[in-house]
Amino acid sequence: MGSVAPSWQDKAAAKRQAVLDLIPVAWRLPQPLPTYKAQKDVTGAYVQQHLSPREIEITEADVAQIVANTTAGKWTATEVVTAFCHRAAIAHQLTNCLHEIFFSQAIAEAKLLDAKFAASGGVPSGPLHGLPVSFKDQFHVRGVETTMGYVGWIGTFEGKKGTGKEKVVESELVREIRGLGGIPFCKTSLPHTVMSGETWNHIVGFTRNPNNRLMSSGGSSGGEGSLVSMKGSPIGFGTDIGGSVRIPAAFCGLYGIRPSFGRLPYAGAANSMPGQNSIPSVCGPLAGSAASLKLMLKAVLTQEPWLYDPAVVELPWRDSLAASLPASAAELGEVLTFGLWESDETVAPTPPVKRAFAMVKALIEKLGHQTIEWQPPSHARASELAVVAYTADGGADVHHHLGLSGEPLQWRIEEFYGTQPFQPKTADKLYDYNLELFQYRQDYMNYWNSTAKLTKSGRPVDAILAPVAPIAAIELDKHTHIAGYTPWVNTLDYTAAVFPVTKVDPAIDLVEEDYTPLNDVDKAIHEEYNPQIQENTPVGLQLVGRRLQEEKILSLVEMLSAALAQE
Amino acid sequence: MGSVAPSWQDKAAAKRQAVLDLIPVAWRLPQPLPTYKAQKDVTGAYVQQHLSPREIEITEADVAQIVANTTAGKWTATEVVTAFCHRAAIAHQLTNCLHEIFFSQAIAEAKLLDAKFAASGGVPSGPLHGLPVSFKDQFHVRGVETTMGYVGWIGTFEGKKGTGKEKVVESELVREIRGLGGIPFCKTSLPHTVMSGETWNHIVGFTRNPNNRLMSSGGSSGGEGSLVSMKGSPIGFGTDIGGSVRIPAAFCGLYGIRPSFGRLPYAGAANSMPGQNSIPSVCGPLAGSAASLKLMLKAVLTQEPWLYDPAVVELPWRDSLAASLPASAAELGEVLTFGLWESDETVAPTPPVKRAFAMVKALIEKLGHQTIEWQPPSHARASELAVVAYTADGGADVHHHLGLSGEPLQWRIEEFYGTQPFQPKTADKLYDYNLELFQYRQDYMNYWNSTAKLTKSGRPVDAILAPVAPIAAIELDKHTHIAGYTPWVNTLDYTAAVFPVTKVDPAIDLVEEDYTPLNDVDKAIHEEYNPQIQENTPVGLQLVGRRLQEEKILSLVEMLSAALAQE
Repeated sequence: MGSVAPSWQDKAAAKRQAVLDLIPVAWRLPQPLPTYKAQKDVTGAYVQQHLSPREIEITEADVAQIVANTTAGKWTATEVVTAFCHRAAIAHQLTNCLHEIFFSQAIAEAKLLDAKFAASGGVPSGPLHGLPVSFKDQFHVRGVETTMGYVGWIGTFEGKKGTGKEKVVESELVREIRGLGGIPFCKTSLPHTVMSGETWNHIVGFTRNPNNRLMSSGGSSGGEGSLVSMKGSPIGFGTDIGGSVRIPAAFCGLYGIRPSFGRLPYAGAANSMPGQNSIPSVCGPLAGSAASLKLMLKAVLTQEPWLYDPAVVELPWRDSLAASLPASAAELGEVLTFGLWESDETVAPTPPVKRAFAMVKALIEKLGHQTIEWQPPSHARASELAVVAYTADGGADVHHHLGLSGEPLQWRIEEFYGTQPFQPKTADKLYDYNLELFQYRQDYMNYWNSTAKLTKSGRPVDAILAPVAPIAAIELDKHTHIAGYTPWVNTLDYTAAVFPVTKVDPAIDLVEEDYTPLNDVDKAIHEEYNPQIQENTPVGLQLVGRRLQEEKILSLVEMLSAALAQE
Repeated sequence: MGSVAPSWQDKAAAKRQAVLDLIPVAWRLPQPLPTYKAQKDVTGAYVQQHLSPREIEITEADVAQIVANTTAGKWTATEVVTAFCHRAAIAHQLTNCLHEIFFSQAIAEAKLLDAKFAASGGVPSGPLHGLPVSFKDQFHVRGVETTMGYVGWIGTFEGKKGTGKEKVVESELVREIRGLGGIPFCKTSLPHTVMSGETWNHIVGFTRNPNNRLMSSGGSSGGEGSLVSMKGSPIGFGTDIGGSVRIPAAFCGLYGIRPSFGRLPYAGAANSMPGQNSIPSVCGPLAGSAASLKLMLKAVLTQEPWLYDPAVVELPWRDSLAASLPASAAELGEVLTFGLWESDETVAPTPPVKRAFAMVKALIEKLGHQTIEWQPPSHARASELAVVAYTADGGADVHHHLGLSGEPLQWRIEEFYGTQPFQPKTADKLYDYNLELFQYRQDYMNYWNSTAKLTKSGRPVDAILAPVAPIAAIELDKHTHIAGYTPWVNTLDYTAAVFPVTKVDPAIDLVEEDYTPLNDVDKAIHEEYNPQIQENTPVGLQLVGRRLQEEKILSLVEMLSAALAQE
């Protein structure tokens, strides 16, 4: 009998094991691991038991603290990177959040940085000197492969063999992070196709939410959500074409930003339907604070990405829009206006999301700012428009990449791509669609402008407060509606930042016994809501601004978060 | 016998006559008009004979002078607008440059502005108070129709009847010009489809070059070129998807700018293949000086077009990049570097263009600045990529609009659209194309960055000097290659501004007797070159900068033009 080619299942299993094998023996957790149910929350004290006090000190520092210490020579790059590698290794074992591990490469680079620092008499290699940075597995890093969750990409460059690019090229964003002194050290999990709000693929399986491992980390940047929430990385980059930065940020209790297209460099990263330019994917960071996101965006923009990525707009960080603001209208000297959009009216927020929304609304009003009902052109229409962009190629791209290995499309994504390719749109129809998209954006803009007549400031609304999903997170393998709350932002190419508000508390977030469902889906979602299971799951909200308003939106998020922390 | 529906020829003729009929009797030129050959040049003294000294003073003032006088109350809006209406009426009779005349509407608006000015004790209605502004017939102005050169659009809104938009809606740019105190007063000719470097359609026929009426005005914004060159408008807006602002600016001896996409508002204007977003059309002004273009861009950006057009980037006018600079390296305190790209190597510049190029090269070097040979990724490849964007819909849009009346496609545009629709690209192939386009832009960017190692400044090249066409202008009805010199800028979405350098002089720009043609096309073009026929035709060049570098490029053009004027 001749040898049989390995099945896609075998290839996936081998890859999964190869990643696990890269975890140093000393960092492997004692077996058996606790079950997900027995140890739902693996953050905080649980993970700390496996770390030294020094490692805890380092990994629980914010980005600003870390770089303050590394650039001043108080912490070495090596100890910082090593501490995060250790914590990331633990995170992976507990939540399945990594796709590629390159700790030894990262530690070697940290040592070089330290040597350079010493040799230069203490000159740091940039504002992010020695900062470990994680990347969703769409970004290429030299020495490491990129599978984007596709079994067929194992051992290839984006599905192609023998290109000479394998493990050599780096994405532009990675190059710039290195230019700032940052150190890539691992790549994080994502669903194959990246077109899902959950993070599951045939290689690593499910990525769990570390705050409650019965729940999903969200997606498609769920590996980042889980890893950063575990403090296994101080900051990491995801991508967002329909909510993929925001959903995991909200589900995992983090801050995350979906910048407008053209603000940050995406050049040289893998993607689904690359070349689709009606509603393009963007990249954005997730971290533990709005200040960390600000620091990162500002740092990246000092690299002048518009000189290296043709899609980036020359728009340096605008400090004038980014100032840290006092929270109250009195101290600020002006009344801000927030549009409130609480429900997509298909699936209404479940109790914890409703409570989070009410908390922030009350806070805004207490601070002396104004809230108005946000009644824009239909967000359902925006979601429909987004789906056209996702599917206009007839699933050609997705099915091609699945076909490389023969793995099937996971069921969560079948709503978009079915089980086989279908008729793509022709260019003339795609142009008609682009016009509809433009008209939607125009109508929305007109509505936004029209709010000037409703505000005390006389200006249009400053930002929109909205849920990220009607639920705190998705209970694993429950099929659940989340599509109504995030894609409208992509359709509009607006800036949106997520911030954590609260956590599910079974003592407060009671099942609404007298709830009148809007429809069958809403009924199902509300019946699935179980405060005991969901206990401790973070609840985040998003603040949405106009296009390319990253500075302003992060400042408002920072302002609201500071005020929330004082409640 | 029943009545017969009018033919498209009848409809076109009726429209042509209706426009002529809008010229007041007092402004009609005595018949017979001189032949084109007998009176090639109708600018300067020729047109002045039909104007009063006051009208000449007003119409020969630059934009800055006009608005200085109107805002100070020295000139009334009414006399300014009336003077330009008169001169535009003459220009049209001599060159066929108008598509829509609405002089009485404009004069009535000017009177209102004057009344407001008087009533307010001299407060102007904006920085463009009383400035007449012309628009290519893609822009909608209330009270007036838009045909875009299509017979089938007569009596419709963009080819559709009964939309309720006919003669009511205005394009965003028009609204903003009004907001600045500007007064639209006429719309200018263009080729149907706008996809031609000459200006001819079945309604108005050919638009002539007023400097030499045996020559074309260029296109597709040829009406603007001709009108502004006649000083029948102080400034007007064209559009550019492959050279359509730059070619008429160069052929007619004007300054014109093709800004990058997203700098100026295009919302609500008619277009060919609307929704085509791989290489989108942009709008830009043509005027008699770089200072006028600067003034206009700066004024429009004060209207914050990014709040009204979803495609506009929030990028206010950057005075720091727009300062008027001393020309010499010594006075400037730094050496600038200009990349020199003289020939597309398919059709080499004819003698006048060659001379103009040498003049500017010598000037740059005399000023102490550096020149280097520009050896970028193939511009021929860029042109190929542009043609894909122009034709990916299989000609569906163009043939649909021709079909409304039954008029045939003019032969100049058949190279793109044939005589009937063809197979459009499917979305998946369009995305593949978008990736090729991105890669080209990336490669070009990399090349541009690489020039830093060749410059005295240590910076990459500051701007590229290039011809706009290998010829000074097109002799009417000669079929001539101009596609190699302008579309690469659109493919790259770079900023490009045209400036006049010289005029064809038969005493200097001799036929090169010993010229060795590069190929048959080059041979034909060079054999067609006739300095006697072309005498007095302007020769312009373009200066090209990176994306969204409008301030810098206009400043460099201003600098070079000032130095040229002193030669």
